[in-house]
Order: sequence, then structure tokens, then C-alpha cells
Amino acid sequence: MTEAAGKDIVTAAVLVIGDEILSGRTKDKNIGFIADLLTAIGIQLKEVRIVPDEEDKIVSALNALRAAFDYVFTTGGIGPTHDDITADAIAKAFGVTIDVDPRAVAIMAPHYAARGLEFTPARMRMARIPAGAELVENAVSKAPGFMLGNVVVMAGVPNIMQAMMQAVSPRLATGKKMQSVAITVRRPESEIAELFGDVQAKFPTVPMGSYPFSDEQGYGANLVLRSTDPEQLDLARQALLASLDASGIPV
Amino acid sequence: MTEAAGKDIVTAAVLVIGDEILSGRTKDKNIGFIADLLTAIGIQLKEVRIVPDEEDKIVSALNALRAAFDYVFTTGGIGPTHDDITADAIAKAFGVTIDVDPRAVAIMAPHYAARGLEFTPARMRMARIPAGAELVENAVSKAPGFMLGNVVVMAGVPNIMQAMMQAVSPRLATGKKMQSVAITVRRPESEIAELFGDVQAKFPTVPMGSYPFSDEQGYGANLVLRSTDPEQLDLARQALLASLDASGIPV
Repeated sequence: MTEAAGKDIVTAAVLVIGDEILSGRTKDKNIGFIADLLTAIGIQLKEVRIVPDEEDKIVSALNALRAAFDYVFTTGGIGPTHDDITADAIAKAFGVTIDVDPRAVAIMAPHYAARGLEFTPARMRMARIPAGAELVENAVSKAPGFMLGNVVVMAGVPNIMQAMMQAVSPRLATGKKMQSVAITVRRPESEIAELFGDVQAKFPTVPMGSYPFSDEQGYGANLVLRSTDPEQLDLARQALLASLDASGIPV
Repeated sequence: MTEAAGKDIVTAAVLVIGDEILSGRTKDKNIGFIADLLTAIGIQLKEVRIVPDEEDKIVSALNALRAAFDYVFTTGGIGPTHDDITADAIAKAFGVTIDVDPRAVAIMAPHYAARGLEFTPARMRMARIPAGAELVENAVSKAPGFMLGNVVVMAGVPNIMQAMMQAVSPRLATGKKMQSVAITVRRPESEIAELFGDVQAKFPTVPMGSYPFSDEQGYGANLVLRSTDPEQLDLARQALLASLDASGIPV
């Protein structure tokens, strides 16, 4: 874990606990949401891993990622059934104990009582939180996520994950926001590759990527420029537009 | 690299070269397609990583994954622009040279000639293939992917990636197919957790997962059972159905 507060660049990884994604039966909807939200608040997502619901795989991926990035966000595996092993795996990775947490019980008990539901052992399982963790509110169905060190542990169900992500965001240290501009050209990218590389060479601090597509109008590419410095970004954008114009390529 | 031929269980990883996915600007559509196709042909997808378009990140992820799994499938970064560095990174990871490949030129040259297009240096860049690799056909836009050792290198544009995946599939060693059955219950998963865990304990070779959802009818869960042994799978399914019935839970 690195200390994120006060840094210009704050980084993150996502760890998806995902037998169901790896089998193809469910298509992930969480990575894109987290990527968008982190970019918007000034955290750079630098790696994503999807691993099976197996304790050793979760522990080793988590320990690699939490050492390399300022934050790690996990999704999946914190429900009431036997296959939900994420909280235990997180505790193991940190070498801390895990037990039913009175703060979680205090949130969940009234929710069940109000619905005439028993606080069964299965539901109690969702109140198990590693020692030293802070809870992350679940506005949808109450059973909380948690944050331990630099690791944020969230549900896999998209609307619950989204609520947890919104709840935890204000607590995160953020850096300069990565801004981007996109210029769409309606030419095969091989026709703009040379001039695009030349413009990149003039602005080494503004990473530029070309993302090709094809549609009913033919081949095209989105040329995406990124920087945390709005002035450099605009200069690079103007240079690219001028270069495209000089080559007779409309945008 | 492990030798996949003749094994009962053949495993794979996916490596997405993906600044554009990590920024959130583009949502990945390739992981789900590859997961479905591999499951269908009898290869088990065991890990996915998304890394930035940076050579050292690609090399280290690739070397970790190709040592751990029978196959690695990469997507992205094999186009004509300066940010397309995947082929060079693969060559570096394997410690082999990379150069314009006459086999790739022979495929691409007639394609450009027929369209009155020059075979420019940018297009020639897409013909650069690491030494020792076999080409993977691109039925969409000709510039080929390739397979080096146990690593299959494909484009990131979904329709081109899909064409390459279809082209390479017949060359892959496959194992027993993982089959699955899903039973949908319209109860919160906390109400089936105990009986579900009991059934899992009776069938340790049939991994069972519960995937909750909520819709306008309320909470529910998809109970998914998996096995490469159809007989065990059916026995487990019958046991689960009997247990749900005994608890008065309709399916």
C-alpha cells in the first residue's frame, strides 16, 4: 500500500472475483462503471484482473495489486452462500481475523426486523467483516461492503456495487484528473498513422491512441489524446488538427 | 507453457492490452465473447488481465500468464499506429526477433492492390510478426494475427477479434467440456444459502455458485452447477431440486 493523499497521480486496480464472468454465463458490467467513475474523480485505473472464486487465487492477486497501486476495488463474492469467500480471502491476505461485526449487525438487524425476516446464520454471514475494516454503505440492500487498508470490497450485483462505489468515493484521495479529447477521422488508421506518430513525438507528455472502427460509412478511427495538463492537451489537439488539415483529412 | 494436447482440463487466460478500456472510454466486448467460445469448445478460462499499452506491463503480464496456463489470448495493439506495441512486446517476452513477415505481406499486398491503395510503411507495420509465429487469418481486413508458442495475438476491434478467434479455434487442443445447469429461485439467496451449502457438501466435484439478482418481481438467485461429468451434474441437480422442494421453495 502506498499513501495516496497529496499525490498528483493516484492509481487503482480492480479485482473481479468472477467464476461467473470467466465461464461467460454473465457478462461483466462493473469494470466499465468503475473505470468511468475513477477517471471522473481523478484516480487512474491501471490494471484489472478477473480471477476464479478460489481463495489462493484471490489472496495472491490481491496482495500483488494492493502493493502496486494506491487503491484496489474488488467486486463479487460477499453474499450469504458457501461460494462467497471474498471477505475471508481478504482477511487472510491481510493476516487479520474476521468475525461478525456489531456495526454491520446494527445496520442489518432493523432492516430484517422491519420486513418480518429472521436474522438467520446465512444473513449473519454477510455481517462478517475483517478486523480493522471500515464499513461501506449499501443503500440498496443494507449488507455492507468494507474498506481495509487501501482495499475496497464491494458486491458483484451491479446496482449494489454502484451504490457502494458512490458511498466510498468521497473517502478516497484523488489526484489530478486525466482529461481527454477525441478526434474522429473517417479514414483507415493506416492513412493517418505517420502524421499521428509525428504529432505524438512532439508532445511526449500527452499519450495519444488510435482506436479504429468500421461502420456503414467505411473505416474510421478515434484519435484520443490524454493529459492531466489542460494546456498541453489543447496544444497537442491543435497540432493534430493542423497536421490533419495539412494532409487534407477532414475531421 | 504447458503441453495442452491430451489433457482432460485445458486452461486459458485472456490479456487485454487496453488503455482505452482502463480509461472507461471504451467498454470491453471481447472478454465475454472469448469466455463463451472457450467454454463451448472445452477450454477453461481461468484468469483475465487488462493492462495499459506499456511494453513492460505487457511483457510481465504475458510471461506470468503463459507460464501458468495452457493458452493465452491477447486482444488489442496490433494496428498501424505508434501506440500499437503488442507485437513488439510479445517478441520481447519470448526473446525472439520481429520483422516484416513475407507470409503476411503476401496476404496483405493483393488486398491493398485490389483497392488501389499503396502498401505504405504504416500498413507494412501490420506485417511485422515475431520469429517462429504462425499467422492467424483475419477474414475482415486481412492484416493477420499470430500464434507464438501458446500465445494467440489478436486485434482489439470486436468483429476482427471474433474472426481471428474463429480462425484459430480449430488449431487448439481442447479438454472435457465444462457443462452447467442453472436453476432460478425467486427468493433472496439468504433463504436458500443453508440448503445450497448442504447440497454442495454432498457433491464436492460439482462446483456450485449462487448469483443473486433483483427485478420487478423482487429478489432471486440463479443457482449454477458445473461439471465436466454429465452424470454427476445431473445427480447434483436432482439433489438440489429435491432439497428446494422439501423446503417448499418453487423453481
